[in-house]
Amino acid sequence: MLNLDLTKLEGFIPQDYLSQRMAGLEKAASMLANHDGPGGDFTGWVYLPRDYDKEEFARIQAAAKKIQQQSQVLVVIGIGGSYLGARAVIDLLASPNYNLKKKDTPDILFAGNGLSTDALLETIALIGDRDFSVNVISKSGTTTEPAVAFRIFKALLEEKYGKEGARERIYATTDKARGALKGLADAEGYEEFVVPDDVGGRFSVLTAVGLLPIAVAGIDIEELMGGAAQAMTELSVGGAENPAWQYAAARHALYQGGKKVELLACYEPCFRFFAEWWKQLYGESEGKEGKGLFPASVEFTADLHSMGQYIQEGERLMFETVVQFAPKGEFIIPNDPENVDGLNFLSGKPLAFVAQQAMRAVILAHVDGGVPNVRIEMPALSAKTAGYLIYFFEYVCGLSGYLLEVNPFNQPGVEAYKVNMYALLGKPGYEEQKKALEERL
Amino acid sequence: MLNLDLTKLEGFIPQDYLSQRMAGLEKAASMLANHDGPGGDFTGWVYLPRDYDKEEFARIQAAAKKIQQQSQVLVVIGIGGSYLGARAVIDLLASPNYNLKKKDTPDILFAGNGLSTDALLETIALIGDRDFSVNVISKSGTTTEPAVAFRIFKALLEEKYGKEGARERIYATTDKARGALKGLADAEGYEEFVVPDDVGGRFSVLTAVGLLPIAVAGIDIEELMGGAAQAMTELSVGGAENPAWQYAAARHALYQGGKKVELLACYEPCFRFFAEWWKQLYGESEGKEGKGLFPASVEFTADLHSMGQYIQEGERLMFETVVQFAPKGEFIIPNDPENVDGLNFLSGKPLAFVAQQAMRAVILAHVDGGVPNVRIEMPALSAKTAGYLIYFFEYVCGLSGYLLEVNPFNQPGVEAYKVNMYALLGKPGYEEQKKALEERL
Repeated sequence: MLNLDLTKLEGFIPQDYLSQRMAGLEKAASMLANHDGPGGDFTGWVYLPRDYDKEEFARIQAAAKKIQQQSQVLVVIGIGGSYLGARAVIDLLASPNYNLKKKDTPDILFAGNGLSTDALLETIALIGDRDFSVNVISKSGTTTEPAVAFRIFKALLEEKYGKEGARERIYATTDKARGALKGLADAEGYEEFVVPDDVGGRFSVLTAVGLLPIAVAGIDIEELMGGAAQAMTELSVGGAENPAWQYAAARHALYQGGKKVELLACYEPCFRFFAEWWKQLYGESEGKEGKGLFPASVEFTADLHSMGQYIQEGERLMFETVVQFAPKGEFIIPNDPENVDGLNFLSGKPLAFVAQQAMRAVILAHVDGGVPNVRIEMPALSAKTAGYLIYFFEYVCGLSGYLLEVNPFNQPGVEAYKVNMYALLGKPGYEEQKKALEERL
Repeated sequence: MLNLDLTKLEGFIPQDYLSQRMAGLEKAASMLANHDGPGGDFTGWVYLPRDYDKEEFARIQAAAKKIQQQSQVLVVIGIGGSYLGARAVIDLLASPNYNLKKKDTPDILFAGNGLSTDALLETIALIGDRDFSVNVISKSGTTTEPAVAFRIFKALLEEKYGKEGARERIYATTDKARGALKGLADAEGYEEFVVPDDVGGRFSVLTAVGLLPIAVAGIDIEELMGGAAQAMTELSVGGAENPAWQYAAARHALYQGGKKVELLACYEPCFRFFAEWWKQLYGESEGKEGKGLFPASVEFTADLHSMGQYIQEGERLMFETVVQFAPKGEFIIPNDPENVDGLNFLSGKPLAFVAQQAMRAVILAHVDGGVPNVRIEMPALSAKTAGYLIYFFEYVCGLSGYLLEVNPFNQPGVEAYKVNMYALLGKPGYEEQKKALEERL
């Protein structure tokens, strides 16, 4: 399913980079498998494609059908891992232009992932007088952005459909037992789905967190889970042939050799938000204790004409990981009898041939410029290949974090701004901090 | 119009960082004003807001009206600077959801900025049976991506409207005298606009390159130019009070002090592609000779829940530049009698208040985490403020490149992959290179 090409790292990292790290990888794989490493309580994602709750899965599929029938718009309220996974997969498989397309599934609008007044007003205007439902995703129910958004869209639903009608249109994905949203959902009788205790936000796309919006967009979530299950099975076999072990070792060797930035590149515009999901996965897992590769992304060939110059000749601080998908369709380049652009040597060839040669050309150019290159080759995009790739990146991330000797499953730094924010907002109990902060501003 | 806050750099760069660089800034400003520094032939953008071709400007406005009347879709074909500027401004001012909105201006679809077969097929499907026009933007007419796209959309137009009808719907923005597209446009009688000789692609958003699509989207391009003109006038006054001088000096001091990444942050989702435009502007201008800050971007508050952990606690290699706009609208946070989420201390407050405190909270958290912070405060988004900001970033970029002692107006590294690509594609004349490259793959 996935072909990993590391030949273009030659000369950039020691030849024995993998054998040097076999003991570390064995230990990391064992900690992931046995949930007994740092952050082991949050490694439920490792066997999720096998152990997921089948009863809930069927309810997700039924709820998706109900939403498709009852509404023209689904508003998905969530932030971080409760936002990026669903958006990544919907963009990747149903297109970044999903909402523009003619289709028999609802538009999907994301809310509660920021504090922009103008973006919120626009989302409300985009719904217009159409029927809509809400999927609110929050483990606690008290995170500021989604909580504020839920106040607003709940009020809009109740205004439009009455309290009873609104109840039929609110789907809460939250903690299985505790928390503000759980309490409200129980009291109001919303349909509920679970944010598992042992799966952190950035690893949650294959739980109800991601699956419900993804299913509403008409994507086959059984295929998605099937692809992930295949990856789980294949990658659980340790050893030097395991592509996840190879990639994790290579990343670690590149980092230890001085590379500070991993640049994720793809030739498909629909990959943009998948790269954003990937940035959270890696940035939040590895970026701690003053360590970690800075995750960045580019969309080729577009960005060869923007970031290309820097990649080719700027500071030598990055390596590149290129994800390549086979095309689904075919397009033959038409002939131009007058050959105005001088490109008739391409007439009659598939556009995919040009893309393939561009990719090969770029790899050699960047390698020659001092940018090591990792290539991940995939079959055509489908729910199955996407599921495989999601699990692959998650598993490599777990291995990488342990090689880096950090806890890849916590995110202590995310609290820093929140504490400041509560204080500055005047939350009761934060009066002293507020005073101290205001004096610094 | 623009308020630059550098107080949160204290302790990260020497106190005399500006005075140390006054001589360099004076020289840089003089080279920009007199077009006599490295790359001086490409500094036509410096006085563009004053010296632009008024007759052509009126033709752009007239053509935009004609397109609005004749078509429901405008396909904009271009790559790099012939793509990002227009997309950035349309997203920023007319929304990333522009095509989704109910409006009396055409949808705008971008093509020719990549080689994805599936993205091309989707663009054709999105046009459907609607009337469309094409704005092809290419100085030479032979750049592979836009040239291939133009072949395709020209053929679709001719099939739909006949050769005569197609001619009325093709708008060519190209060289004023030479090149393949210029020759074709002359021969066919397309309406033509000029890519000036003295303005490089990444500085061309305020020429016909950017202005025609922007005007078609219903944005007031006179206001846009007016904002840029105001910036030009204000920033031409050199000295320690000049915010462009201050920012350029600070960036340079941060870079010399070891920072390798500039992270551009904004709290408005509509800023995403403006940040992409900014990345090209800075990456392509500074990223050469092994030097330059790596430009990256984040969308807050969303990315506080993804990249926030890395920013707070990962490798200490970045500083942050935050662009903040006043909101256009207002939204009051509703009260919840049951206070389920515990946020009633915010009830009745504008959402913008929460956003403002979040921004202040983040700045202090990141500064405490070792991330120096630059803040650019702007009035509400409008064509005028956007024009001002465009010119500000361009001017700072010119100064910065000269402080870095590179030619900020060339892009020699972009050729490397193109040569490889022509060879691998089998372009006549590249047979030897092809053989050598294939052997390495």
